[in-house]
Amino acid sequence: MSKDKKLVEAITSMNDDFAQWYTDVIKKAELVDYSSVRGCMIIKPYGYAIWENLQKALDAKFKATGHENVYMPMFIPESLLLKEKEHVEGFAPEVAWVTHGGDEKLTERLCVRPTSETLFCEHYANIVHSYRDLPKLYNQWCSVVRWEKTTRPFLRTLEFLWQEGHTAHATAEEAQEETIKMLNVYAEICENVLAIPVIKGRKTDKEKFAGAKATYTIESLMHDGKALQSGTSHNFGDGFARAFEIQYTDKNNQLQYVHQTSWGVTTRLIGAIIMVHGDDSGLVLPPAVAPTQLVIIPVSQHKEGVLEKANELLGSLSSRFRVKIDDSDKMPGWKFSEYEMKGVPLRLEVGPKDIEKNQVVLVRRDTGEKLFVSMDSLEETVGKLLADIQKALLERARDMRDKKTYTAASLEEFENVINTTPGFIKAMWCGGQECEDQIKEKTGATARCMPFEQEELSDKCVCCGKPAKTMVYWGKAY
Amino acid sequence: MSKDKKLVEAITSMNDDFAQWYTDVIKKAELVDYSSVRGCMIIKPYGYAIWENLQKALDAKFKATGHENVYMPMFIPESLLLKEKEHVEGFAPEVAWVTHGGDEKLTERLCVRPTSETLFCEHYANIVHSYRDLPKLYNQWCSVVRWEKTTRPFLRTLEFLWQEGHTAHATAEEAQEETIKMLNVYAEICENVLAIPVIKGRKTDKEKFAGAKATYTIESLMHDGKALQSGTSHNFGDGFARAFEIQYTDKNNQLQYVHQTSWGVTTRLIGAIIMVHGDDSGLVLPPAVAPTQLVIIPVSQHKEGVLEKANELLGSLSSRFRVKIDDSDKMPGWKFSEYEMKGVPLRLEVGPKDIEKNQVVLVRRDTGEKLFVSMDSLEETVGKLLADIQKALLERARDMRDKKTYTAASLEEFENVINTTPGFIKAMWCGGQECEDQIKEKTGATARCMPFEQEELSDKCVCCGKPAKTMVYWGKAY
Repeated sequence: MSKDKKLVEAITSMNDDFAQWYTDVIKKAELVDYSSVRGCMIIKPYGYAIWENLQKALDAKFKATGHENVYMPMFIPESLLLKEKEHVEGFAPEVAWVTHGGDEKLTERLCVRPTSETLFCEHYANIVHSYRDLPKLYNQWCSVVRWEKTTRPFLRTLEFLWQEGHTAHATAEEAQEETIKMLNVYAEICENVLAIPVIKGRKTDKEKFAGAKATYTIESLMHDGKALQSGTSHNFGDGFARAFEIQYTDKNNQLQYVHQTSWGVTTRLIGAIIMVHGDDSGLVLPPAVAPTQLVIIPVSQHKEGVLEKANELLGSLSSRFRVKIDDSDKMPGWKFSEYEMKGVPLRLEVGPKDIEKNQVVLVRRDTGEKLFVSMDSLEETVGKLLADIQKALLERARDMRDKKTYTAASLEEFENVINTTPGFIKAMWCGGQECEDQIKEKTGATARCMPFEQEELSDKCVCCGKPAKTMVYWGKAY
Repeated sequence: MSKDKKLVEAITSMNDDFAQWYTDVIKKAELVDYSSVRGCMIIKPYGYAIWENLQKALDAKFKATGHENVYMPMFIPESLLLKEKEHVEGFAPEVAWVTHGGDEKLTERLCVRPTSETLFCEHYANIVHSYRDLPKLYNQWCSVVRWEKTTRPFLRTLEFLWQEGHTAHATAEEAQEETIKMLNVYAEICENVLAIPVIKGRKTDKEKFAGAKATYTIESLMHDGKALQSGTSHNFGDGFARAFEIQYTDKNNQLQYVHQTSWGVTTRLIGAIIMVHGDDSGLVLPPAVAPTQLVIIPVSQHKEGVLEKANELLGSLSSRFRVKIDDSDKMPGWKFSEYEMKGVPLRLEVGPKDIEKNQVVLVRRDTGEKLFVSMDSLEETVGKLLADIQKALLERARDMRDKKTYTAASLEEFENVINTTPGFIKAMWCGGQECEDQIKEKTGATARCMPFEQEELSDKCVCCGKPAKTMVYWGKAY
């Protein structure tokens, strides 16, 4: 019993210490573990199953929008990384360098890819010749490495899993269309699959990707009021094309540079799921990504007919839902806590009395609501409840986000709000990097994005008071 | 047209120069490309789609047999790699070493995983405590790196994609059962999905995996008579458990070491598909892994009704098969060659005359057979033909393999056979490594495996003439 007990020991309350709560949840819900490799995580079966479900949803969407998967080498020769000036300045300080192969010292160092623009560019320069070769719509699933000083599972790790889309187009318009299309794909998946509402917008020049002409982002808000950059989509213009000489002959037989994009989301989204939906009993998973959507707990399982009935229900529900049964010899109460910690959306209890009444008990993880449901309409009810939970989680998250979204008309107000009630702060901005720097210095907040949905809160910059150009979402961020 | 033409330029004949034929096929069927990273390959969309289909089949089988996917770090600290003596001797000479993170020199070098036994062992030591924690049945999809001197796409590359299963069990019997179970999974997938017949058997001590107690293998035979190790499954006994102190408390409260296995297949299997089924017109893909199972080529597509009908067929066939249409402005003849090169199992031609007769033309890639099929029974006929092709490819490959399998009673005969008619050579062996070494030196052949299905060809070792213990499949190998 000692092992069971550990599982149901209370975790730190999120209001007492959010960071410790996060660490407790990822450990006790068995999402990740540590190894002797600094800053890298072991993604355990339960955590990896969430990633697989997310991958499946994304990959289907990528394919439906005409993208093809490829695989590029994990190494980048130093000379290749150096080809695009802004890009290398952004990434060189944080890459891992391979200097030896076996006993042999390499004549040129190789970095472990922090991102693969340079490899895709080299490849595109080889395979793109004519307008008939365009567009190239490629995606890659892999892991990348960035040599971070301080790390945290899912949120910031030396190595993480992601997908990186890389596309090449004939015109600037097509590249821009692609950039926004993929941002919208990310936003839809976040809202419909992860039940996480996002703000779509453009990054300021200070915050954009190294080498991009424009970076677009989806920003979500965590329970502690901190923002999380949840996915980005970059329009490169023809900057990389010029550096890598990616040219094609157009219909008029003229040489043109291609226009490129890249876009990516990472295992960081699992961190977002935890911090948007979780509570003091642990993880709360949206049904669409939950590895187990419903867990069956037989009550008084030694009594005649109980296990048989529980297994019968498992059989009939499994064709439509991701269901598991726990018929281990742990006490039902321990099991309840364990699957609450793991965020399983629905718990089904069935015991001798239920069987007599031809019913089961269903308990919602998100609300704790307990329902007595006839076995005759079980499949239908489960389907409906899972859809309800998915919807309710998104609404709850949107409410939370909206409640934690504030406006500020002056720097004093800004400071005051962010220090007392952390969240998104909407405030006007003149567009100057001095103001952006000053806001960060005084408040710790960065420009999360210039949202597509602009509001004219005032006509003055929150920092310098000069004419404002844009409304910006500001926030402290992970 | 110049670009179209390149596609149908004849490739080197496999009988003239098999290695060049292989290189021509992987290039012209657009499976891989090269980059500036020595020894690594770019897997292009068509090649990667084959890998995805293979992955899907394997992953479903792994899950059906109770395995869970996880993700381990890609780096291994040198001290961890050094923990199991035989293992490190096998791998240290061929690993890539990371010595710097950003500008900082690491206090301990990290190697890029050549395989992940050491990481799994460290993790198991942390999470396995009681017999209740066993078995652990984990699998990982990732890429690994081995610093090879000479490389060849799919067959031997510095980096390759694979899966590595790692399991821990309470008893030696369970570990042995798992080892054989997963070897059988590989054999089934090779035969049923890739249409490649394999010989199952055990590796000699000289050929086994570094650190394994026993290595089992599936060996297939390529068209040029060379063998390809196509998948391996290792029983580690408790060797790694002792080195990493992976212990559990059994039901009698006694401390015991776990018994472990590992097993893997790689992108090398794509090389096997090419070299087992391909011909002088290019790739020949088994329907079960073909990214496109049927390609529709409209004939006289500018004529009224042709494109409409072709798209109607696309729509109706797509729900059941992987179908694409090529309505580009290339000539039908060029298209025929292109999809032959790409090994698409079935080609469907439809033109004005066919539409009049309510029929289409189906052409099999494997036999060239041309069938006139009523549109009314099209779906059924396509299903049947794809099943026939899948079966025919396996039979043809088995015939080829059997024809190229020889026996040798003496070393002279062995030398003579392998130099005139390359293939598998079945010959008796005394079990001594001296003979194994001598055979390799004289003939270039290695012991591929000691097959489960033994035959008593004679009672004398083919090399030394002393009493024979085992029949061995020998061969030159990739």
